[in-house]
Amino acid sequence: MPESLKVAVAVSLDDASADRIRELEPRVELLRDPALTAPWRWDGDWEGEPGFARTPEQQEAFDALLADADAIFGIPDVSPAALARAVRANERLRWVHTTAAGGGGQVKKAELTEAELERVVVTTSAGMHASTLAEWAVFGVLAGAKDLRQLEADQAERHWGTGRRLMRHVSEMTVLVVGLGGIGKVVAERFAGLGATVWGTTRSGEPVDHVDRLVPIDELAAAAAEVDAIVVTLPGTERTEGLVGAEVLGAVRPDTILVNVGRGTVVDEPALLDALHAGRIGFAALDVTAVEPLPAESRLWAHPSVLISPHTAALSRQEPRRIAELFAANATRLLDGEPLQNVMSTKEFY
Amino acid sequence: MPESLKVAVAVSLDDASADRIRELEPRVELLRDPALTAPWRWDGDWEGEPGFARTPEQQEAFDALLADADAIFGIPDVSPAALARAVRANERLRWVHTTAAGGGGQVKKAELTEAELERVVVTTSAGMHASTLAEWAVFGVLAGAKDLRQLEADQAERHWGTGRRLMRHVSEMTVLVVGLGGIGKVVAERFAGLGATVWGTTRSGEPVDHVDRLVPIDELAAAAAEVDAIVVTLPGTERTEGLVGAEVLGAVRPDTILVNVGRGTVVDEPALLDALHAGRIGFAALDVTAVEPLPAESRLWAHPSVLISPHTAALSRQEPRRIAELFAANATRLLDGEPLQNVMSTKEFY
Repeated sequence: MPESLKVAVAVSLDDASADRIRELEPRVELLRDPALTAPWRWDGDWEGEPGFARTPEQQEAFDALLADADAIFGIPDVSPAALARAVRANERLRWVHTTAAGGGGQVKKAELTEAELERVVVTTSAGMHASTLAEWAVFGVLAGAKDLRQLEADQAERHWGTGRRLMRHVSEMTVLVVGLGGIGKVVAERFAGLGATVWGTTRSGEPVDHVDRLVPIDELAAAAAEVDAIVVTLPGTERTEGLVGAEVLGAVRPDTILVNVGRGTVVDEPALLDALHAGRIGFAALDVTAVEPLPAESRLWAHPSVLISPHTAALSRQEPRRIAELFAANATRLLDGEPLQNVMSTKEFY
Repeated sequence: MPESLKVAVAVSLDDASADRIRELEPRVELLRDPALTAPWRWDGDWEGEPGFARTPEQQEAFDALLADADAIFGIPDVSPAALARAVRANERLRWVHTTAAGGGGQVKKAELTEAELERVVVTTSAGMHASTLAEWAVFGVLAGAKDLRQLEADQAERHWGTGRRLMRHVSEMTVLVVGLGGIGKVVAERFAGLGATVWGTTRSGEPVDHVDRLVPIDELAAAAAEVDAIVVTLPGTERTEGLVGAEVLGAVRPDTILVNVGRGTVVDEPALLDALHAGRIGFAALDVTAVEPLPAESRLWAHPSVLISPHTAALSRQEPRRIAELFAANATRLLDGEPLQNVMSTKEFY
């Protein structure tokens, strides 16, 4: 069993989070020089300032850190090529932790050999965003249920409404969660906590806590026709592209609420605009869009029943600390010879 | 033990809710003629159409219903005088159920004698609104945390933002619930379910589920200075008037969120406007205002960090059914000789 673990910090990390790692696992030695990594534009900005560049001396020092480490925190320069170089330059390297939830794409593009992938385990920060995204989903559904845009229109006219226009209540609604992965599970829990009836789509058919009815994914349109709100949590893959399209959005009841906290490509945007126009979708809260940034000419910007947020709902000032704590716990497991958590599959790279 | 209970339905009630009472307690006989009560303008509109009036024959029939009953569902014509008349005209009457959460004011104004109040027990529909108001409170705090108005401003300009402006998350916030009565308890539960740290004000000092810290009411300002959001749930009484005033709103940190689902008089509106102007209150969601409807000249209407709803957050299409179920359960208790629930105090009329 190794007595200590040298960790090269390959992305910017704040002092408090670095201290937290050392506090939780004193056997970790951090190789870290903030001058060698792109500074954050905001808390947890793992990509860092786009203009950042190292002098030749700095690059040498950075490479030396990576070459001396048992593990790397963050993908160097968020670059597949830099990752491949670091793995090949350091035979001792056995673990890379990505600060992204997925990060599979970058590791796949690094084109590591089978032997390299066997030597170096890759772990991700999956699960760090479930709670914040679930909150956004709750906010989006509530904004639709409470008829936010009508309230705002009345307020602009200084008009005090009446009970004629009753608000809807999540506690009286059925919410369909599309995708019951790490994010979807927390979304289901949050809506159940507000008293909603929760349905969720599944491929496996495995029961999930807080989900009252499991919907096989190929029965999505039929289920969508019976609910008050739909929350999309799916990642962007070939299988999910356009899944919430003309068939699903044509089947829903009037005034159905749609929230997307997964990937924009899961929702067919022309079909969504049709459904908004027809009143089948009464409100849509979108933290993600098919193309990001959303192009200026998109009709989604100006639709009165659409709320856009710029893929920021997951971000949190506390994310770096949480990732540091996840990393420290995995470091303890590695040092104690136990299996790591959040290990990336080297087949599906997810 | 009586074998049956004749109940005069003194307000409009939908067929389904009437059926629900009979289904749950078959020993209840409803004396009900929808032609004799003011029709609803919306579901659960217990006051009914303001223009409604009975012909002399109809009034006679209505009085006969009331005179033949053991119990009355709803305060006749929502009128203290009509209630007093009904109590005095019917020696058999022993129970009146109000469809309002409080309704104490009307009963107090009826000026019933001590003997009459001993003969006739009054029960209220308190608790029917806690869940819907708690949802509004969650919505209001989320709208502030997610910086709704900034998102909308960006959207209007088709501007895709960055992580520079991080959203706040309820799961990382401390929420102070002002008042831990029936509504406040559910508010506390909902915020705890979203992962918030919950503080709550108390007069009794009794522990309350989901409340991490009890704040004595005279330490309100000091506690308000340490939280991210304040949710007011207190009723409008002499003791609560202006409680959230210059002292409390002068003490809070920048960008504190304020939600009021109690009574408008609890918040001092000039002090709130000062705090909004100074940025100490970053967002305020008000379902209630000191004067309702909110006067057209109020500066609250046009403030960009204020969301107004016209005291409708509590209303629900399902309220009549819920009140019917509460009434049926109490009818069973009365018939079985057990103590009723939601009995109004004949001293405090609350």
